Amino acid sequence: MHDYPALEALAEIIRLGSFDAAAARLGITPSAVSQRIKGLEDRLGAVLIHRGPPASGTETGLRLMQHLDQVRLLEQGLDKHIRPQSGPAVLRIAVNADSLATWFLPAMTALPVLYDLVVDDQDHARDWLRSGQVSAAITSNPQPVAGCDASALGHMRYLALASPAFIASHFATGCTAETLSAAPAVIFNSKDALQAHWAERATGQRLRLRGHLIPASEPFARALALGLGWGMVPETMARSAIANGELRPILPDLPLDVPLYWQVSRALAPAIRPLSDAVKKRAAENLRP
Amino acid sequence: MHDYPALEALAEIIRLGSFDAAAARLGITPSAVSQRIKGLEDRLGAVLIHRGPPASGTETGLRLMQHLDQVRLLEQGLDKHIRPQSGPAVLRIAVNADSLATWFLPAMTALPVLYDLVVDDQDHARDWLRSGQVSAAITSNPQPVAGCDASALGHMRYLALASPAFIASHFATGCTAETLSAAPAVIFNSKDALQAHWAERATGQRLRLRGHLIPASEPFARALALGLGWGMVPETMARSAIANGELRPILPDLPLDVPLYWQVSRALAPAIRPLSDAVKKRAAENLRP
Repeated sequence: MHDYPALEALAEIIRLGSFDAAAARLGITPSAVSQRIKGLEDRLGAVLIHRGPPASGTETGLRLMQHLDQVRLLEQGLDKHIRPQSGPAVLRIAVNADSLATWFLPAMTALPVLYDLVVDDQDHARDWLRSGQVSAAITSNPQPVAGCDASALGHMRYLALASPAFIASHFATGCTAETLSAAPAVIFNSKDALQAHWAERATGQRLRLRGHLIPASEPFARALALGLGWGMVPETMARSAIANGELRPILPDLPLDVPLYWQVSRALAPAIRPLSDAVKKRAAENLRP
Repeated sequence: MHDYPALEALAEIIRLGSFDAAAARLGITPSAVSQRIKGLEDRLGAVLIHRGPPASGTETGLRLMQHLDQVRLLEQGLDKHIRPQSGPAVLRIAVNADSLATWFLPAMTALPVLYDLVVDDQDHARDWLRSGQVSAAITSNPQPVAGCDASALGHMRYLALASPAFIASHFATGCTAETLSAAPAVIFNSKDALQAHWAERATGQRLRLRGHLIPASEPFARALALGLGWGMVPETMARSAIANGELRPILPDLPLDVPLYWQVSRALAPAIRPLSDAVKKRAAENLRP
């Protein structure tokens, strides 16, 4: 078996950023914390903590923290009389920013754990699952990661939007490969391929778009209304801005539907079933089939 | 002088994630791109690109990309007849999530560049400036980074909020060290010390808080309304949720005022003056003195 007291020290150091804070939280001395980590590193032959400051986990250290969290979640599922006294269970999940900004949040109340949300693009959430750093994720790829089950959630509909003034000045001659390449886009971050996908559908060509990088969902949509560029916004988030005339579809009949899947580590699926059920229910109510 | 065609190739690879995409954007062959990068790496004796996929910049590579962006910004400030044909200027700045979610965005329209926003905690934005990876930043520390000037913007007022049901169930016996340590907090990410600072003011003790990590401003505030925990929200963002009864201050008379500063690289200050003026004006209208 693993040395669980050492793993607990490891997780506290990574979460709190220092050996001293971890010692205080665990009620032991800093030198006891150091010894636990050193012993673990020696046995495993791997560095687990970048000493910092602030201290942070190496890839292997983060993987072990995630393992500890999963063991705690399983312990929480034991009947009360055989359940150990333990720190609160932490559930680390990867959620795409637009799901978090629109439909996902209320589902989280279904499971009494502490959530550690990793916000990443739906196209890249599988990497977090594959490396074992999250226990569940919203992905755009239906292919289950090894050891995980995937359930279809429905489709998130995106509209290509801009302000009326922006459309008048950049797309007066139509939405073509030329005008789209010249007009600044707004892009969430360098992983966000939605604008490029839509531009390829609209023109039949792969374009190299130039754009602002604004990695936050609501500010992204407001940047469009301010005329900084055009970009893809979930229809549910854009509804009122379209109704009041701040935003307009560039091409009214060309939405982009992104399929979303809920992937859960099989070993943890029973422990987090209430969350999974709530996620599927919210998705059914808020996404397109 | 630096080899600027090689720096342009470097920046395109980092922004687009591949040598082939950079070649297509620059209208040269992939092997010409490889040669430029290899020549630059040999001359500097440093690796500039993690080959991936996707390709990404090393710390030194990112620093050089930022240098190129700054040179382009300076070129854009030249009179038209001596200004070179060049790619669009990109301005990389660090902004804290709550400023981006509330008052900052409209200031960005004052300068016609492509923005690359780095969203990070105001307490950590100086690190981005110091490592030369951004040209300007919103910081909470008045101390200018070497080579930068700092201007005071005012104070962002935060309120410690929770839902009325959460307050009734977790703070029925008052807001004490004991009840605050037991109640789940909502925390932006592991760098976010606002909840801990406020708890120390409220109780006179340094507490170790447990909490959910929800790294997005609007979802953070909605998580409080859903009863997931208590946390610090800018007063301007919380106004309507307080008015309609979804959120309530835990202690009505204990706000936390965070000073904010605008720090700009001195070499670039003239080139981005319109942005700096707009940032100061928006701050004066939206922050407390």
